[in-house]
Amino acid sequence: MEKIVVIKIGGNCIDDEVALSAFLSDFAAIKFPKILIHGGGKLATQLASQLNLETTLIDGRRITDEKMLDVVTMVYAGLINKKIVAQLQAAECNAVGFCGADANLIQAHQRVNNEINYGFVGDIDKVNADFLVDLLDKNYTPILAPITHNKKGILLNTNADTLASSIAIALAQKSNKVDFYYCFEKNGLLANVDDDMSLISAVNIQEIELLKQNQTITKGMIPKVDNISFALKNGVDKVVLCNAKHIGEIFEENSILGTTFTIK
Amino acid sequence: MEKIVVIKIGGNCIDDEVALSAFLSDFAAIKFPKILIHGGGKLATQLASQLNLETTLIDGRRITDEKMLDVVTMVYAGLINKKIVAQLQAAECNAVGFCGADANLIQAHQRVNNEINYGFVGDIDKVNADFLVDLLDKNYTPILAPITHNKKGILLNTNADTLASSIAIALAQKSNKVDFYYCFEKNGLLANVDDDMSLISAVNIQEIELLKQNQTITKGMIPKVDNISFALKNGVDKVVLCNAKHIGEIFEENSILGTTFTIK
Repeated sequence: MEKIVVIKIGGNCIDDEVALSAFLSDFAAIKFPKILIHGGGKLATQLASQLNLETTLIDGRRITDEKMLDVVTMVYAGLINKKIVAQLQAAECNAVGFCGADANLIQAHQRVNNEINYGFVGDIDKVNADFLVDLLDKNYTPILAPITHNKKGILLNTNADTLASSIAIALAQKSNKVDFYYCFEKNGLLANVDDDMSLISAVNIQEIELLKQNQTITKGMIPKVDNISFALKNGVDKVVLCNAKHIGEIFEENSILGTTFTIK
Repeated sequence: MEKIVVIKIGGNCIDDEVALSAFLSDFAAIKFPKILIHGGGKLATQLASQLNLETTLIDGRRITDEKMLDVVTMVYAGLINKKIVAQLQAAECNAVGFCGADANLIQAHQRVNNEINYGFVGDIDKVNADFLVDLLDKNYTPILAPITHNKKGILLNTNADTLASSIAIALAQKSNKVDFYYCFEKNGLLANVDDDMSLISAVNIQEIELLKQNQTITKGMIPKVDNISFALKNGVDKVVLCNAKHIGEIFEENSILGTTFTIK
């Protein structure tokens, strides 16, 4: 396959129905074979709270006991995934929704951590990229929810950022070119986090380290950028960090939107 | 394709974790290309009640307002569907879960009824059988939740019995032979509903009418049997009404379990 586009959208976009709808309409129009990975947003936390389940996050990761696993499975793989699929189908994009258990797409193991019991949280072992390539070849658009399984009958809650980069890496072994678009609520990597106009347009892997040292990249950006580095080192051609609002324009020729990360 | 087996399981089996697990283990072992359609059981009603939503059933059909649609989407297409897929994957059955929006598998329209407003309830217009045949050819096992869509962005709650027979009929146009197994909590069609030993082994379409007239078929059995007649008249080779407990043995040679319905 000539080129595959892998796109991740995060919580802020999913929580806002109008923004999500605009995003999906732009996404449907992208001409390349494409895959969408979505996070869960606040909906899982809301449902948990309505069910009197307490949400505990450690370093942004949700502690997932059995009841919370049911909640995230319902919200991510059910509600959000199927609403996205239905909206894309209406926009003439032949979307098909999956979680990692389907077709053994993403096999994981329960996280082992001596200090914190994360519960039913999964770390990814392998991706069935052939299944995805086959669907893309037939013009279907896979939509992935961040739930995986251990192949022993247990579903696992899995970080959507890591899942998206694992998918991009696995596809890079099967395709000439994989571009990974990492959408969030900012315009890209900013020299000054409070100034939307201070966009850094292009960054290579060496520069990532410098930007960490001089504290342009801090806090929540660190795991994102580590994910990006890891993807580039493992065969992904470029990673674009951009605003979900710009996903249409960014595919236009000579677009100057977003931050493009490359290996060199 | 030589022969496709379409199997529907209902609520009673899904509500009972031990029974469901036994059923899935037997289902995984069936050697033919196969598709499973599952209902929702009491889980949706339970979740609705925890969320203070009132469940109203008219003739067994759930009145589905927007909030109830979210509940059934979460429970059917999320929780139940993905748990079934994960368990089958553990049993080396390459299951893939879908709702009717995925790949535009089952397109429907919102029910029009002058007397009752059913809300987001769908009546089926068409089935994308090619997508299913393609998956079966590659040894995948589709698992379908009873949620469809209108191709205009709206998900619809759809009766699982009707959905299963629509799938069987659509596949009958693409395959030499489709057998439809309709699993429930009884052993089949009983001459005396209170006597599990009074099984009627074989019934043809003319006999169905006689059994309705003499009131062997009454109440809740009528829509089931009407569904069965409709499937037979539209290309399905045989329909077997049987106990979910027997789904393993019924594929053994010379099995005398269940009631087999045929056209002649």
